[in-house]
Amino acid sequence: MKTFNIGLVGCGFMGKTHTFGYKTIPLYYENLPFKINLKTVCASGKESAKNAAERMGYENYTDNFDDIINDESIDIVDICTPNYLHADEIFSAVKAKKHIYCDKPLVSKLADAEKIADLEKNYEKCTQITFQNRFFPATMLAKKMIDEGKIGKILTFEAKFLHSGSIDKNKPIGWKQDGEKGGGGVIVDLGSHVIDLMRYLLGNYADIFCKTKILYPERPDKDGNTVKIAAEDEAHALVTMKNGANGVMTISKISTGTNDELSFEIYGDKGALRFNLMDANYLYYFDNTQKEDVFGGERGFKQIECVQRFDAPGGLFPSSKSSIGWLRGHVHCLYNFLNCVYENKKCTPNFSDGAYVNYIMDLMYKSAKDGKTVFCK
Amino acid sequence: MKTFNIGLVGCGFMGKTHTFGYKTIPLYYENLPFKINLKTVCASGKESAKNAAERMGYENYTDNFDDIINDESIDIVDICTPNYLHADEIFSAVKAKKHIYCDKPLVSKLADAEKIADLEKNYEKCTQITFQNRFFPATMLAKKMIDEGKIGKILTFEAKFLHSGSIDKNKPIGWKQDGEKGGGGVIVDLGSHVIDLMRYLLGNYADIFCKTKILYPERPDKDGNTVKIAAEDEAHALVTMKNGANGVMTISKISTGTNDELSFEIYGDKGALRFNLMDANYLYYFDNTQKEDVFGGERGFKQIECVQRFDAPGGLFPSSKSSIGWLRGHVHCLYNFLNCVYENKKCTPNFSDGAYVNYIMDLMYKSAKDGKTVFCK
Amino acid sequence: MKTFNIGLVGCGFMGKTHTFGYKTIPLYYENLPFKINLKTVCASGKESAKNAAERMGYENYTDNFDDIINDESIDIVDICTPNYLHADEIFSAVKAKKHIYCDKPLVSKLADAEKIADLEKNYEKCTQITFQNRFFPATMLAKKMIDEGKIGKILTFEAKFLHSGSIDKNKPIGWKQDGEKGGGGVIVDLGSHVIDLMRYLLGNYADIFCKTKILYPERPDKDGNTVKIAAEDEAHALVTMKNGANGVMTISKISTGTNDELSFEIYGDKGALRFNLMDANYLYYFDNTQKEDVFGGERGFKQIECVQRFDAPGGLFPSSKSSIGWLRGHVHCLYNFLNCVYENKKCTPNFSDGAYVNYIMDLMYKSAKDGKTVFCK
Amino acid sequence: MKTFNIGLVGCGFMGKTHTFGYKTIPLYYENLPFKINLKTVCASGKESAKNAAERMGYENYTDNFDDIINDESIDIVDICTPNYLHADEIFSAVKAKKHIYCDKPLVSKLADAEKIADLEKNYEKCTQITFQNRFFPATMLAKKMIDEGKIGKILTFEAKFLHSGSIDKNKPIGWKQDGEKGGGGVIVDLGSHVIDLMRYLLGNYADIFCKTKILYPERPDKDGNTVKIAAEDEAHALVTMKNGANGVMTISKISTGTNDELSFEIYGDKGALRFNLMDANYLYYFDNTQKEDVFGGERGFKQIECVQRFDAPGGLFPSSKSSIGWLRGHVHCLYNFLNCVYENKKCTPNFSDGAYVNYIMDLMYKSAKDGKTVFCK
Repeated sequence: MKTFNIGLVGCGFMGKTHTFGYKTIPLYYENLPFKINLKTVCASGKESAKNAAERMGYENYTDNFDDIINDESIDIVDICTPNYLHADEIFSAVKAKKHIYCDKPLVSKLADAEKIADLEKNYEKCTQITFQNRFFPATMLAKKMIDEGKIGKILTFEAKFLHSGSIDKNKPIGWKQDGEKGGGGVIVDLGSHVIDLMRYLLGNYADIFCKTKILYPERPDKDGNTVKIAAEDEAHALVTMKNGANGVMTISKISTGTNDELSFEIYGDKGALRFNLMDANYLYYFDNTQKEDVFGGERGFKQIECVQRFDAPGGLFPSSKSSIGWLRGHVHCLYNFLNCVYENKKCTPNFSDGAYVNYIMDLMYKSAKDGKTVFCK
Repeated sequence: MKTFNIGLVGCGFMGKTHTFGYKTIPLYYENLPFKINLKTVCASGKESAKNAAERMGYENYTDNFDDIINDESIDIVDICTPNYLHADEIFSAVKAKKHIYCDKPLVSKLADAEKIADLEKNYEKCTQITFQNRFFPATMLAKKMIDEGKIGKILTFEAKFLHSGSIDKNKPIGWKQDGEKGGGGVIVDLGSHVIDLMRYLLGNYADIFCKTKILYPERPDKDGNTVKIAAEDEAHALVTMKNGANGVMTISKISTGTNDELSFEIYGDKGALRFNLMDANYLYYFDNTQKEDVFGGERGFKQIECVQRFDAPGGLFPSSKSSIGWLRGHVHCLYNFLNCVYENKKCTPNFSDGAYVNYIMDLMYKSAKDGKTVFCK
Repeated sequence: MKTFNIGLVGCGFMGKTHTFGYKTIPLYYENLPFKINLKTVCASGKESAKNAAERMGYENYTDNFDDIINDESIDIVDICTPNYLHADEIFSAVKAKKHIYCDKPLVSKLADAEKIADLEKNYEKCTQITFQNRFFPATMLAKKMIDEGKIGKILTFEAKFLHSGSIDKNKPIGWKQDGEKGGGGVIVDLGSHVIDLMRYLLGNYADIFCKTKILYPERPDKDGNTVKIAAEDEAHALVTMKNGANGVMTISKISTGTNDELSFEIYGDKGALRFNLMDANYLYYFDNTQKEDVFGGERGFKQIECVQRFDAPGGLFPSSKSSIGWLRGHVHCLYNFLNCVYENKKCTPNFSDGAYVNYIMDLMYKSAKDGKTVFCK
Repeated sequence: MKTFNIGLVGCGFMGKTHTFGYKTIPLYYENLPFKINLKTVCASGKESAKNAAERMGYENYTDNFDDIINDESIDIVDICTPNYLHADEIFSAVKAKKHIYCDKPLVSKLADAEKIADLEKNYEKCTQITFQNRFFPATMLAKKMIDEGKIGKILTFEAKFLHSGSIDKNKPIGWKQDGEKGGGGVIVDLGSHVIDLMRYLLGNYADIFCKTKILYPERPDKDGNTVKIAAEDEAHALVTMKNGANGVMTISKISTGTNDELSFEIYGDKGALRFNLMDANYLYYFDNTQKEDVFGGERGFKQIECVQRFDAPGGLFPSSKSSIGWLRGHVHCLYNFLNCVYENKKCTPNFSDGAYVNYIMDLMYKSAKDGKTVFCK
């Protein structure tokens, strides 16, 4: 049986999340035709790399990414570093002909995104970006229903990603609020998910008007210094899709009381869909082809019990009826990648999909800066 | 056009509620073929009767119920007095051959209930009891779906009526907590609704095990005296219906944080229904004939938009899409009665239906007293 | 006791709604110090006026608005006609020194709105516009909590009014979809409520970027003719308030599966609020001053049980715990007006408030037409 | 650093679930002071044991439980076999002085439960039973709030565990529906959780009246034979707790449309709590000490954001704000055991707690059989 040797770079939150996937995939999926071996983890310092290897169960550790790149036994390079480092790591991994799994966003600069999308065209190994929100049963069902025509012509929609982490002005900022390292603010951190998910469900964007807000111009950093803030805390965008639907997007880390509230509402002439990540067990569906009738007839939003009803070979563990949690989307996203690697087929979402998100984010910043509607190619 | 002259006895909360119905029915229902005239209101004292007449818009007032009974112009006697007075008032009204609309429960003593049910058999005028919870679009739809077989064979159910009014031991009791005047405690006040609603939806009862609780043996009355409490604050019942389904009923005024929470869940082999009076705009329906499918397919509880979708001639005002409130059930219950009077047909629920509820309440008390299962005829 | 004689013009849906208020206010409110007399109703045709008078209980009817204006016994003129007629009716009523209660929107042309706001300054009688959504316990509580500082500095918000009535392209249009008679499309019909409610809660507007959509350029009218549509079916607006908060508004009649879904979410640094008219019993409140603690501590959105907890003399009928429906907001809006008339004090919201909404609607249309951000005075 | 060697017996669904815990605990918890080594897995057949070892990552496999018992390097015996095998396995493991982690229910016969509880008294190693529903942040918070007095004196409660797996009469039965192997029906499979969770939160039971139902007397087995059913599909129980509160329990596999719906409602004089496993991110809390006030004041059920807010060293991965799934309760239950093993302290819930549940289940069956209330010691 084929064993995939994994080389992971970056062992913060996302490194752990991906590792969680590697460890649990053999339980979540029945009769896997491949094995997974956690070969090497790379961190910025020797000590943290060593700790990560021990805690997460990697055979080797290093603080030199080249040790992964140059290890011919490593099949898969998994990139979980801060956004601004992705581009160079991808370029190296491509040179070394590795399969590459990269956390979102693809890169922090559009030029790099375009270069990578270009490289990917003739690349013979698998490349995938972790837009894990595509990989919940509820969101996959949304896609399936739209593709089957059950929602009909899309009339209007909204999509939101609401967090509350940037309300406290005294909380020291992390790298995601550092416009340089993050490549932007909430548009990059949260908006990238929204942009991708709506594109996955509704297709490409036609035009965008975007407005951003920096709540406090200065905040403390972790050393207690006051620093100027360049990363937006909130963005609103009015968009029109190529399919003609208008929609509104809200991306915010200043939405008091929210936890991890990615949600969408999609209204079509045959049906409507609603989803909220904090209620990820369900997709809400309204069938507009049912006739109005006395007392309400049978019209209404149905809370479809998506729960853990993954398609085979997933969905059997734990019970398909058990409530689902956030990590499970990541696991299925990763499974999708590994399965593509095993079957030697192109992944979706791939780096071009990631580059498209970089493109739209760039337009959003442009619109916000100029105060004007921008038009997409 | 026929005008119905109304004589109302009892001008507390229920008297106002029924009067609200008489005043608004001409707005809620299109093209009524009859008119309503608020002729006489009767209260226990002259002064309160006068005030009630002025406030509620009755032509006359009296403190003598016979003034209503003996007024030949009065077509309809509406009984809103405390429970223990109902029996004599009904007997008088029957003698006077009035149409009678009586608030629930029918009476406070089973013997009277049986006598009235007996009288009703050959009574030529209309008689209806106000089990108004039968008259929401959501509950009428539940009945319709069950009758159409959409729920299939009923497997199990629960029904609850939760209030919180009896938690505070220092709050002076009213007549409903006075076992004599109320004819019991929560079983009579709230349970009668539950008993009737489940019978309406599921048919008659086969056996009952009931347990009651008096939270505090003594409470203050309105004059500040400490009185012994004979009326139960809570009752639980395990019941089996004639259709074979087991179910559980909870009736409580000690359910902290609840407002007016009448709810039921009915599970059948073809479908399931859920309703909650605090969310009365919707009936929740699960269609068990839909096949399981990947990602959840189309299985789930549907929030049917019952809102104000009354059957004609209701449902047009206000918009059928506007949210509904508690009073509307009462209004439709009363409309049903008036329409029966106009069309000279038998009402449902009538006094026999009310007597049946008295019968079941009696069995509940018997079971609770003896600690044994009781069997219904 | 003072009796207010009412003259109502317009006996469609809104005429009935206001009449519902006049009839039920003596029940909803304890010990009213005034009486209400339904004196005269005016409709566009004699026959419909006669029918309206009979059905709704007015003493007189007319098809000539002057009959109301010239009737010195009439204290209050209530305007429920199509929007484009409001201006002239208000001018007449002002000349006749009537108290005026006018359904929203104030008028269909901004110039008239400004004229009326000007007239109102020195007008000695009461004037109120029916922005009834201000008058639910839940929305009044929202206002109270914001005013008390419980939400703190407003950081961001959204407000939506979603209907689904314009999805079916074959449904004949009514006057609200006739850009002339309605004075616009959904911005006027639904947006006016959103604009007013957000202003009530958050203060005045600073700038607006608005985008509108006409779903189908042609639709059938009631005579079966195909007509060109000038009234928008949907509008999105990004706004900044004078208080600095950015927000987004969605106003739509093409939101599949919605009934009457006016909702808002308001996020401040001390707390957050959420409301939805289809769930009008509750206001959802997050207290951000509570500390984070293990297992969640006590942080979370609280479903405040507003139900029918009106301030005195409301709130006693029906039980303050009973579920509320759409009509009740209208009744309290009207009560507010009658009480101001009785106490001879200025109403809120008055015609100037209505004129402000006309002003903002005008800016929205301007922004949508030019594709640019507009700035408010 | 100490390494715990694990010997697992039973590699069905629960075996996988526990293994999931061993693999992910080093990620979920920061700075673990011990390591976990999956040493040996035991299944009823060599082949399935081998497969399990490969899939789940155990070093060795066997079909002879003694291989685990006799392996001195194995610290922890984890029992995931069908209920009727637990007793002998526990006796063996006790003899071998292993730490024992046993899935619920403890055993299938009360006499064995009592013997084990007795043995446990002087047992020097750790013993824990997997009542994993105690280990969600939401249920731990419920316990904490009750212990702190925030709910006050418990007045009444309900607890339910609703599944829908036994509605289809043509679905072949598994061992859980085989009265012998399962030791009963839903009372054992689902009821054990309810019994334990309510005891955890409310204390011991005083008396019980229970009614059970076998929906279909015969069903097919996996070989297509028709077999008589001895295991109940549904049970209802009215209980009184030692603290005086009455409550009702519903345990059912015939509740159409439900997935994995364990829920409770607890009403006390100072507050109330509501929880539903399908909505496990939240605990709903009503604070009855807040005063009633106009418009609702601040009274209402609060949706406390428990999410993944475990106490340290949990709660950091994934984000404490991410939605939680069913498996996470199991993981924390197991962590609790491992931590007790590491710190050499007594576990809760231990085998005596498991034996108590066996005792109550026994009483339920007795009550159901005799149709009478049973009283607890």
